[in-house]
Amino acid sequence: MQHLINTRDFSIDEVNELFKRAELFLDEKPRDILKEKMIITIFFENSTRTRSSFEIAAKRLGANVVSLDVSKSSSSKGETLFDTAANLDAMGPDAIVVRHKNSGVPHILSNYVNCPILNGGDGPHAHPTQALLDLFTMTRYFNDLQGVKIAIVGDIKNSRVANSNIELLTRYGLDVTLVAPPHFLPETTLKTSHNIKEVIDDVQIVMSLRTQTERHKNQIYGSLKDYAKDFCITEELMGDRDILLLHPGPVHRNVDIDDAMLRDSRCKVLEQVKNGVAVRMAVLEKLIA
Amino acid sequence: MQHLINTRDFSIDEVNELFKRAELFLDEKPRDILKEKMIITIFFENSTRTRSSFEIAAKRLGANVVSLDVSKSSSSKGETLFDTAANLDAMGPDAIVVRHKNSGVPHILSNYVNCPILNGGDGPHAHPTQALLDLFTMTRYFNDLQGVKIAIVGDIKNSRVANSNIELLTRYGLDVTLVAPPHFLPETTLKTSHNIKEVIDDVQIVMSLRTQTERHKNQIYGSLKDYAKDFCITEELMGDRDILLLHPGPVHRNVDIDDAMLRDSRCKVLEQVKNGVAVRMAVLEKLIA
Amino acid sequence: MQHLINTRDFSIDEVNELFKRAELFLDEKPRDILKEKMIITIFFENSTRTRSSFEIAAKRLGANVVSLDVSKSSSSKGETLFDTAANLDAMGPDAIVVRHKNSGVPHILSNYVNCPILNGGDGPHAHPTQALLDLFTMTRYFNDLQGVKIAIVGDIKNSRVANSNIELLTRYGLDVTLVAPPHFLPETTLKTSHNIKEVIDDVQIVMSLRTQTERHKNQIYGSLKDYAKDFCITEELMGDRDILLLHPGPVHRNVDIDDAMLRDSRCKVLEQVKNGVAVRMAVLEKLIA
Repeated sequence: MQHLINTRDFSIDEVNELFKRAELFLDEKPRDILKEKMIITIFFENSTRTRSSFEIAAKRLGANVVSLDVSKSSSSKGETLFDTAANLDAMGPDAIVVRHKNSGVPHILSNYVNCPILNGGDGPHAHPTQALLDLFTMTRYFNDLQGVKIAIVGDIKNSRVANSNIELLTRYGLDVTLVAPPHFLPETTLKTSHNIKEVIDDVQIVMSLRTQTERHKNQIYGSLKDYAKDFCITEELMGDRDILLLHPGPVHRNVDIDDAMLRDSRCKVLEQVKNGVAVRMAVLEKLIA
Repeated sequence: MQHLINTRDFSIDEVNELFKRAELFLDEKPRDILKEKMIITIFFENSTRTRSSFEIAAKRLGANVVSLDVSKSSSSKGETLFDTAANLDAMGPDAIVVRHKNSGVPHILSNYVNCPILNGGDGPHAHPTQALLDLFTMTRYFNDLQGVKIAIVGDIKNSRVANSNIELLTRYGLDVTLVAPPHFLPETTLKTSHNIKEVIDDVQIVMSLRTQTERHKNQIYGSLKDYAKDFCITEELMGDRDILLLHPGPVHRNVDIDDAMLRDSRCKVLEQVKNGVAVRMAVLEKLIA
Repeated sequence: MQHLINTRDFSIDEVNELFKRAELFLDEKPRDILKEKMIITIFFENSTRTRSSFEIAAKRLGANVVSLDVSKSSSSKGETLFDTAANLDAMGPDAIVVRHKNSGVPHILSNYVNCPILNGGDGPHAHPTQALLDLFTMTRYFNDLQGVKIAIVGDIKNSRVANSNIELLTRYGLDVTLVAPPHFLPETTLKTSHNIKEVIDDVQIVMSLRTQTERHKNQIYGSLKDYAKDFCITEELMGDRDILLLHPGPVHRNVDIDDAMLRDSRCKVLEQVKNGVAVRMAVLEKLIA
């Protein structure tokens, strides 16, 4: 049995195989592949996008889904997280999708259950299906990603999306530059920059991240406006460069990416969302079927 | 592709066709008509009745449903309503049912998606499936509704149910009188009255509305008791008149309608609820299948 | 038509028949028995475990499920509980599962609907499916339960689980002793004790209950630690006795049962959860199919 806790859980060969299946699933046709299966989603943090993407993916494969919003549930009865997991597992689901605000929770839960755990995001640690769908989106525009240059821009240090992408993209041979204010940069051996203007001429892909205002108790940068001046992906910055623009969403308009670029055909935000369902279908099939 | 934002979106012929289908669906049998379809419900306002009616209608037609309670979701991450809609649309649903406290939201959303939008109620503006199920209920008791006299009673000005009914019923040829205290009457060319007792002898149908206490910041009428004295539909008021009594629910007992009339066979509140599922099945079939 | 409001609603013969079906359902295979059916769950109190168990049971039998979390819904619009029930019933469900913080609500609701009501727990009154799954778990370890001695330990007076078990187990011929501090004991003709150590040598089954801290406005016992000293089921207390240890969950670790005993093979907490799905499948089949 295999879990998906972080991107390292899949080899390059496995990822390539996964993407072949995801390509088929882009037709959005319902299938019977998981017809006899029961999937539990358990989100300790709110999420419209990731939960509905997983739920649509599961249902499109014919699975039954039971959705638990545990922010308001038996945790308040003094039960530990692990007892909750063990109890859900005892009901015989075929997989559990979990999101939690603390890093490491999906990994620990995987020791208490007899079915695959799919990490739907854990604190700043990892968001593996997001990185997979980002990479999948890139493969739709590049025949060979080896050596392709990408700038990841924004609050990298606090971003599970960035963490998962850095692991997966470097393993895939992409040439990654991290672009952020100093306090948003993690310790890294990768190239770094404090100004997107300095690297925009050198890259073929820009991945803008969401400014995680809700994770910062103290506003670290002076204002979102100051931040946007240096890091927002604008029409002026992009010019007519042939660059693929990605963002995991939800986008802070005119802070992460400006309105004009969100309308621009180089921006693939909605295509990422569509691909996300197909990639999650492939992941569910791989771990369950 | 067609949306249902307000009742004007359907012609009289389309409504008649719809009601023929709804009649079939009254058998409450499950069908496979939407078997391969995925429907998202996204309610920005709480609702037991309308959400569960749509959900049961969709599932009775064989569709998959993903329910999003967005009162507590990514809106808090600073995403606009329109980005939320565009993102859900990118996941490839076959229809989106939306309720929102602001008038016009379903209409605006319809510009951001590639699937039918069904308005499940938007502020005081419109609630088209409610008006359709009300009219459908009337057709069950009148062979010809042309010229049939109806009194709509209550907080008409703030009621999306009243707005949608006024549009649909007048177009269908009913003779509508609005009965309300002066501050609850909209500007209108219809007949009006401030006292239900003055019109009760002249009507064949009474539609009582829910007193929308939660929408009024300041209590406009002195007390609910005073209001009830003039507008509550009581056994005493109705006498033995042959009048059909409707109400969209939830009923404020002894304010909108008294306990005795709620037990009376002339009161069709529960039949409206039953008809609501059938009418919503017909609407979903029309817009999706 | 039959409801399940409390355990008395089923005769011994009916329970035995139910358990035969539940045994089949332990294979966790999906079935088509309720393929054309629609089940509404309506929980006025939060619950992860019971709601998901019912939902998985229903879906494993092929039914459609509509889940309503009415803690935040049309009750706030001034509708009575009974109108909510009558309205849901008008949508034509094949069964309604209800949990409510007030005793008697499921019973009263059963007078307002035309489909079976399944009590998912009402105040301190009853939790019949829990008692059925507890008894079912015992039958897996004892060929004949007549005269088998069981201690029910904990806050018995406030426990719907205890109430339902006492009714069902005594009717089944078990020899029940209630073990609790004086203020947690109901008036009873059963044997009682204030100290688990006094009865541990005489029993073959111990059913520990959850300390219902959230139901007590004033902390009645000095501290959970003091309580645990006399009533926690510990490794030291159990020794190597051949005793079956049950608990309805969620467990207060080291208050109800200590960590060591939760890991011990005599503790069947997770097996109870697994059995719960099978027993609820059998109940749904019995009342609906």
